[in-house]
Parts: sequence; C-alpha cells; structure tokens
Amino acid sequence: MSHYSEELTKLKESLLAMASHAESAVARAIRSLVERNEDVALQVEEDDNILDQFEIEIDDIAVHLLTKAPLATDLRLITVAMKISQNLERVGDEAVTIARRARELNAEPQLKPYIDIPRMATMGIEMLRDSLTAFVNRDTERARAVIPRDADVDDLNRQLHRELASFMVERPTTITRCLKLMTISKSLERIADHATNIAEEVVYLYEAKDIRHAFQKHELQNPGRG
Amino acid sequence: MSHYSEELTKLKESLLAMASHAESAVARAIRSLVERNEDVALQVEEDDNILDQFEIEIDDIAVHLLTKAPLATDLRLITVAMKISQNLERVGDEAVTIARRARELNAEPQLKPYIDIPRMATMGIEMLRDSLTAFVNRDTERARAVIPRDADVDDLNRQLHRELASFMVERPTTITRCLKLMTISKSLERIADHATNIAEEVVYLYEAKDIRHAFQKHELQNPGRG
Repeated sequence: MSHYSEELTKLKESLLAMASHAESAVARAIRSLVERNEDVALQVEEDDNILDQFEIEIDDIAVHLLTKAPLATDLRLITVAMKISQNLERVGDEAVTIARRARELNAEPQLKPYIDIPRMATMGIEMLRDSLTAFVNRDTERARAVIPRDADVDDLNRQLHRELASFMVERPTTITRCLKLMTISKSLERIADHATNIAEEVVYLYEAKDIRHAFQKHELQNPGRG
Repeated sequence: MSHYSEELTKLKESLLAMASHAESAVARAIRSLVERNEDVALQVEEDDNILDQFEIEIDDIAVHLLTKAPLATDLRLITVAMKISQNLERVGDEAVTIARRARELNAEPQLKPYIDIPRMATMGIEMLRDSLTAFVNRDTERARAVIPRDADVDDLNRQLHRELASFMVERPTTITRCLKLMTISKSLERIADHATNIAEEVVYLYEAKDIRHAFQKHELQNPGRG
C-alpha cells in the first residue's frame, strides 16, 4: 500500500510538472509573438516532445496503478489524471501552432500592437493553473470558479475575430496576417477550453456528479462558440 | 467472469453506436451546407447531446469495469475506450461548428460549388469508421492504414485555405463567407485528426508500443499543420 501511495503521488507530481511545462509553452509562444523573437518560437516547437513524453509517462503510471485494483474513488482519480494529461498535451499542440504563426508574422511588418492576445493568454494560463491546483488540492470550489471564465476568453476571441475581419475588408493587403492572428486567437480560445475541460473533470471527480455536459450544453446554446 | 465479459461487450457496442452517431453528425452537417438545408443543421445541433450522453455512459461502464480488476491488457483496452469516446465527443462538437456555419452561409448567396469540403468530410468519416472497426476487430493493420490518410486531409485543408485567402483578396465583400468556409474546412481537418488519434490508440493498444508521438512528431514537422 505504501508503494501504491507513492506511485499515486508520483502521478500527481508528473501532472503538475506537465502542467507547468504546458503553461510555459503558451507563455513563451506569446512572448515570441510580442517580442518578435524567432528563437523563443523555435524553442516552443522543439520542446513540444517533452509534453508528449509526459503524456506517455503518465499513461504508463496510470495503467500500472489501475492494475493494483485500488478503491473505486481512486479509479476515477486515475482515469481523470489520464484525461487531464491528454488535455495538457493538446495545450502544447496549440502553443506550437501559436509559435509557428508567430514566426511567420514576425517575418512581416507588425499590423498593430498586441493587446487582447497577451490578455487571453494570461487568462488561459491562469485557468490551467487553477484547475490543476484544484485537482491536487481536491478543491472543487476553485475548479468551479474556472468554468465561467471560459466565456470571457470566448468573448475576447469573438471580438478580435470581428475586428480582424473588418480590418481585412478595409485593407485586403493585410489578409494573410489577419488570418494568422485569427488562428492564434482561436488557439488561445482552445487552451481555455482545455482548462475548462480539466476543471469540469475535477468537479466530476470529487463531487461524483457529471457536470461536464451540463456546461457544454449551455455553451452550445451560445452561437458564437466553435 | 461471464457478467464481466458481457459488460466488456456492452462497452464496445456503445462505442460503435457512438461512432455511428458521430459519423452521421458529420455527414448531416455537410449535407446541411451542400443542400442549404436549415432543418438538417438544426438537427445536428440538437442531437449533439446524444454524443454527450454516450460519453458519460461509456465512462461509467469503463470505470465500473476497472473496479473488477481485470487483466492488464483489459485495463489498456478500457482506458483506450475512454479516450476513443472523448475523441468521438469532440467530433460531435466539430459537427456542431460546421452546422452553425452552414446555417449562416445558407442565409447568403453561395460563393461557389462545394467540391473539396464534401470530399474532406467523406475522408474523415471513412477514417473514423476504419479506426473503430480496427478497434473492435483488433486489426492493427487497418488502424495503421488510417494514419497516413491524415496528411491528405491536411493537404486539402491547406489548399482550400490558400484558395479562399486569394479569393478574399480579390473580392473583399466575400471575406465573412470565406472565413466561415475556412472554419468548416478546419473542423473537417480536426475530425480527421481525431480519427488519427483513435487509430494511433488502437495500434498502441494491440501492439503495446507507443506510436502516438512518433507520428505526431512527424506531423509537427509539417509546417502547415495547426
């Protein structure tokens, strides 16, 4: 049992380390855009395999823990850990997308100062951090508080999408740059979605009721999503 | 043991039923676009909760099966089933995105005949079907054959993105419609990604080696992805 609980601790520690990597990837991807820094962008692209490795490692620990036939509540925890890891891996993929578009944008004149994009990134990173802290501390209140923040990031994405679309109409020469900024904004919106998924899993895990699709359903009624 | 194996069968059957629903959602979303049919689009949006319910049901069966402490190979199968279900649920979300954009597009004059979009949809649906068949029949060869097809869908998406971007430059009045078509094309590309994820999980499950990030790494070197 002692060995088992050590492995469980290792699972949580790996998830936290993975989350910290994912947050840092997002932060650096945005930094590469704002500071027009090619090297930082390339670093994000190269480091993505670290998140891939984490996902594999966490899966292995999780499956191994499952073989030890633990309590039903632990089973939920372990399967939720695997889901969180999958979400973090996808956050990493979004960071790579951002870094790539940043490199392309940095090869051309900057359209305008970036204000909403860094803001969305900060919101997403904080949502990720809170949902992981909630997971580790069994803090469903903190997890619940993450969920409505997704709508704020969605709003910023929609607003930026509209602004960029108008800009494109006025100045068609900026179209390719605007499209890349739209992709970055959409990636940030997806990062917030992943953080929200994690938060919903944490509530589900510790409150043993399924809020996932109650919230999703609500979001689906919001015509701007997707 | 007999009851256990019945539950395992139920898990597979539910996954197949869910997959069939997800495929049908994608097919109908594209039909709503091509046939300019508002009702079909609304149906896709309404039916999305069926996929949500499937995901919850499959999670419940899976966690229950895990409590019965089966063989290590069964543990992998059960956790992979949960991952497949999560991917299918996201396929449903993409179908909803497509249906929404289709409704918006159908309220305006059609830009041009849709050729690549239905083709991408067919490819994605077939990839989904093959990866699920591979899962149920333990057919890793079929699963492996799905993976390279992702690149074809990526290529079509990139090509369409370029065409639409040029179109926007030439005719700025079409920008909002082109953006919606880009979103649909991107959603189809993501559906193929989900099918590829499923195929990779199936290979991993039955060959017990981790090909997931070997392939992802390859894709990440492809600058057009994301």
